[in-house]
Amino acid sequence: MAERPMTPLLDQIDLPSDMNGLSDAQLRRLADELRAETISTVSETGGHLGAGLGVVELTVALHAVFDAPKDKIVWDVSHQTYPHKILTGRRDRIRTLRQKDGLSGFTKRSESPYDCFGAAHSSTSISAALGFAVARDLGGEGGDAIAVIGDGAMSAGMAYEALNNAGHLKKRLIVILNDNEMSIAPPVGAMSSYLSRLYAGDPFQEFKAAAKGAVSFLPEPLQEGARRAKDMLKHMTVGGTLFEELGFSYLGPIDGHDMEQLLSVLRTVKIRATGPILIHVITKKGKGYAENRADRGHATAKFDVVTGEQKKTPSNAPSYTSVFAESLIKHATKDDKIVAVTAAMPDGTGLDRFMSRFASRCFDVGIAEQHGVTFCAGLAAGGMKPFCTIYSTFLQRGYDQIVHDVAIQRLPVRFAIDRAGLVGADGATHAGSFDVAFLANLPGFVVMAAADEAELTRMVATAVAHDSGPIAFRFPRGEGVGVEIPDDAQPLEIGKGRMIRAGARVAILSFGTRLQEIEKACEALATRGITPTVADARFAKPLDRDMILGLARDHEALITVEEGAIGGFGSHVAQLLAEEGVFDHGLKFRSMVLPDVFIDQAGPREMYEVAGMNAEHIETKVLHVLGVDVIGKRA
Amino acid sequence: MAERPMTPLLDQIDLPSDMNGLSDAQLRRLADELRAETISTVSETGGHLGAGLGVVELTVALHAVFDAPKDKIVWDVSHQTYPHKILTGRRDRIRTLRQKDGLSGFTKRSESPYDCFGAAHSSTSISAALGFAVARDLGGEGGDAIAVIGDGAMSAGMAYEALNNAGHLKKRLIVILNDNEMSIAPPVGAMSSYLSRLYAGDPFQEFKAAAKGAVSFLPEPLQEGARRAKDMLKHMTVGGTLFEELGFSYLGPIDGHDMEQLLSVLRTVKIRATGPILIHVITKKGKGYAENRADRGHATAKFDVVTGEQKKTPSNAPSYTSVFAESLIKHATKDDKIVAVTAAMPDGTGLDRFMSRFASRCFDVGIAEQHGVTFCAGLAAGGMKPFCTIYSTFLQRGYDQIVHDVAIQRLPVRFAIDRAGLVGADGATHAGSFDVAFLANLPGFVVMAAADEAELTRMVATAVAHDSGPIAFRFPRGEGVGVEIPDDAQPLEIGKGRMIRAGARVAILSFGTRLQEIEKACEALATRGITPTVADARFAKPLDRDMILGLARDHEALITVEEGAIGGFGSHVAQLLAEEGVFDHGLKFRSMVLPDVFIDQAGPREMYEVAGMNAEHIETKVLHVLGVDVIGKRA
Repeated sequence: MAERPMTPLLDQIDLPSDMNGLSDAQLRRLADELRAETISTVSETGGHLGAGLGVVELTVALHAVFDAPKDKIVWDVSHQTYPHKILTGRRDRIRTLRQKDGLSGFTKRSESPYDCFGAAHSSTSISAALGFAVARDLGGEGGDAIAVIGDGAMSAGMAYEALNNAGHLKKRLIVILNDNEMSIAPPVGAMSSYLSRLYAGDPFQEFKAAAKGAVSFLPEPLQEGARRAKDMLKHMTVGGTLFEELGFSYLGPIDGHDMEQLLSVLRTVKIRATGPILIHVITKKGKGYAENRADRGHATAKFDVVTGEQKKTPSNAPSYTSVFAESLIKHATKDDKIVAVTAAMPDGTGLDRFMSRFASRCFDVGIAEQHGVTFCAGLAAGGMKPFCTIYSTFLQRGYDQIVHDVAIQRLPVRFAIDRAGLVGADGATHAGSFDVAFLANLPGFVVMAAADEAELTRMVATAVAHDSGPIAFRFPRGEGVGVEIPDDAQPLEIGKGRMIRAGARVAILSFGTRLQEIEKACEALATRGITPTVADARFAKPLDRDMILGLARDHEALITVEEGAIGGFGSHVAQLLAEEGVFDHGLKFRSMVLPDVFIDQAGPREMYEVAGMNAEHIETKVLHVLGVDVIGKRA
Repeated sequence: MAERPMTPLLDQIDLPSDMNGLSDAQLRRLADELRAETISTVSETGGHLGAGLGVVELTVALHAVFDAPKDKIVWDVSHQTYPHKILTGRRDRIRTLRQKDGLSGFTKRSESPYDCFGAAHSSTSISAALGFAVARDLGGEGGDAIAVIGDGAMSAGMAYEALNNAGHLKKRLIVILNDNEMSIAPPVGAMSSYLSRLYAGDPFQEFKAAAKGAVSFLPEPLQEGARRAKDMLKHMTVGGTLFEELGFSYLGPIDGHDMEQLLSVLRTVKIRATGPILIHVITKKGKGYAENRADRGHATAKFDVVTGEQKKTPSNAPSYTSVFAESLIKHATKDDKIVAVTAAMPDGTGLDRFMSRFASRCFDVGIAEQHGVTFCAGLAAGGMKPFCTIYSTFLQRGYDQIVHDVAIQRLPVRFAIDRAGLVGADGATHAGSFDVAFLANLPGFVVMAAADEAELTRMVATAVAHDSGPIAFRFPRGEGVGVEIPDDAQPLEIGKGRMIRAGARVAILSFGTRLQEIEKACEALATRGITPTVADARFAKPLDRDMILGLARDHEALITVEEGAIGGFGSHVAQLLAEEGVFDHGLKFRSMVLPDVFIDQAGPREMYEVAGMNAEHIETKVLHVLGVDVIGKRA
């Protein structure tokens, strides 16, 4: 482990109030120490490094000028809040970041009063801050409401909806646009180009002069200061027509690593702002450590601070993501109707590879799942075969569009749903728990889950071939199980499952990747002479009625297992069994689903432990349902 | 019935191609006849009148200049397409609008090739049109892609997402912004103010001159014409910076009732447009008939064309909507923390009354459900008691925000879900079928459904009192059942149902307003000596475990009834019964849910007939499950 940095000033700060009395020069040094501490922390914990490094000065300046937790600082996405956490009473636990029972990698209301609003999905901050501002003006708690939002997050519709509403309501509200020219992927969208134009040329020159003026006014009597501040605000507005048209005052662009500028602008805004104001701050993602890396340290494993080398554990099998991407590329080579859409996640979804092969057939629409889904619907109506490639958790953003534009019109949009199920260190906000429930109840939808990476390639082939309506397939985060991947995967018959092993008394019906744990459970059960039948449903919709009713008929117990919330696969099976009268004369039916809690971040296996989804839970469930004495086993 | 208008020109038009060869003057007259026919139609059918009247000239001009169905005209919301339907082969069926087996009140792909994309929810058109444009450029079918979108729809984030993406992709794409200064409600939001500024003063003067120039160039040789058209485009751009910043060429504003202007602009655009272009058209909603009415004929019952008098059937009971609104007002009088949020539906949700009483505590955020939900989360975090008042079908737009901003943070946002279940003439796009499934699987949520209007007032009281997490209550469209409404409704105990009548053999467990049909079914069953037990669950989450397990224990059969899709209440009950081992030794369990189809528009009772949710279906279900001979009854 590298030696920890010397941080004499930071060592004196437990809470933001400890910064009172520090000079501006000291605040600048504090920022340097905070940057070093952040780098040191993430080298041990892994996590989002670049975003935090970009806002170190901004974090210090905000906490120096404003009065959290009374003032409400709402961090968009909030993966940039490691420095904020260090400054707000959590430095002693910062090296537990993203670990089980440790600090969350995002803001979290239950973790600290300084985290006034949790986030992890993008573009929510202006809406939340407006809520705080309105509550304040109606006599609720809270002082200033400040949203800190990145330029990438501005591509999302809900950020625009919030600006539109805030510009109309005219409440005092501070939006800090943290423009680092790069969210996760290279910037896309017209808004991004617009922002670039605002600081083309020599952006800070005019501004620096104005900021200098601001510093000088501060010690003077308030009235004089106020007059000068007013003038300053007027002069600082050197662009930003678009935001002004939406009812905001625009300030900037300013250099987000220049503490003097930041402090003077924030102090001025604090004194003078009346209505909604947008401060455009230019920062460098990864500033001071990773700014020259291609991804600017977006999300990193643990690393060596000196060499920068990442400490990744070597993988045995390809990730589901890469299997999906390679499979789609293979099909796209032969079928020029195949197009792919991502919502600002080309790397995470593997579509970066597709894009480099088929640039004209791959579309990064920005953080814009609503548009992305309906854009796919339009592509399908125009005769293409669109693959809408969105993580389960983010697909929730496009739900109405899935219902209204895709399902009702029976358009053949293919949904490739990555990160289905539990996801590890990103925790509850990124879990993909609800997709089966919210898709399988839509008339005409086909919903599949891959049991392993070979199955995934078959489901890609199935989706390519399925042209009569919408189809979705889900697969988890992480590596496959290491099975051989077929060279020429064939489409599956719609609505047909497969038998994995024939057994007796109890049938376990799997939907998705828990199949491996079921197999392990069967091995353990075999030592007790219990040999369950195992089947892979493949489809939550349409169900394989014959197979399921056969399993029910031939066994005294039937257990469904899925990595999803109630209302999904197991509920559809239960409904089928009920309508067919299978329960009338008794069937030991159980449905293992994700428990009714939001599961905090942890290692994958630990999360499955909490969820009760590991082999031993399945084993226990079988023993229980068969009435076998399980003393000594976990209940 | 009023005499039908004389329409000699319109009588010759079956399809848009029949307009070829008509002079501009004839097209103008055709528009007049089309307006008269539209008024006459809606006087007989009821429906959305004002929106269609506002776009009569635009409809004629688009079909005269462009070549549908090869060119793709995507109508946003599409309740303004009655004139379009009349011009595209459906005049003979236009008087079946919004009736069972008749024409849909919206565009519908299965109805006509001229309806290239269905709509009903707002703000999807630019995304869909961009999909068509990209498909075309990739060798798919289709010519020009044209979105026609209202100013109200521009408040939605997905419209912005689509503009942002289109401005980036730079494909030829035509967006017609139909600015009628009024969507359903008075305009809100900064975008609306911005649009107004674009045509403040004398908007059309400069434009008229430019348009005149365009007409004169058309018969000339193409090269010369093209040069002039280019100049014209340059001169026509007299504003619209905001759209230009987003990568669009801006044209306008133009007078949407001036056929000469419309034709010349559209012809010029057709020849010259290369990238994305936005044409800003000013129209009057209700033009020629209802333009002076307060709602400009947004949605109307059948009416007398001469007197304007509407033919509404008198109602016996107050609507659920008004009972909700009055109840909320009553609580808000005593509790100043109560605030209410609507997404552009103050009339439909009854919040217009709340707004007139508590102007500072009521927020119309625009067509912005994503923002609306998170804004409520911010209000709740700021100490208020927000009632997020959104129709079931539109709440789908805010699903991720419900999960990510409300549920995970356990913030006490109150969701008042109107139009839950089937909704009649608006059809499948407006049905509220999925809310129970997509809310009840969220940890920590409380989900209720009102059995009648008295219950609704108790659920409002329950929501006011429930401060520990999110809570939702659903209620249907239309009138209540006429029960007495308590003066001082008390909060319900969370997770407790109520017994309605004690019986034997079979228990019927109701969730929501089907309780009345269950009661009717019980009356019919009594004649056969069958007396079911009936209970009202009130809560889908948390379930009343004791009551449900008791019902299961004491009866040979248990039937759940709900007006919602699979995955909701019945699925939660099934999961409970399975986990408790109730099925192990047999229970005749059935779960009546909405069928797995999107149900087309019809009268409410007819829709329930299709859904299998009327008293006789419940009766039949009971008889079947008890094995009673039901020959002669519907199966």
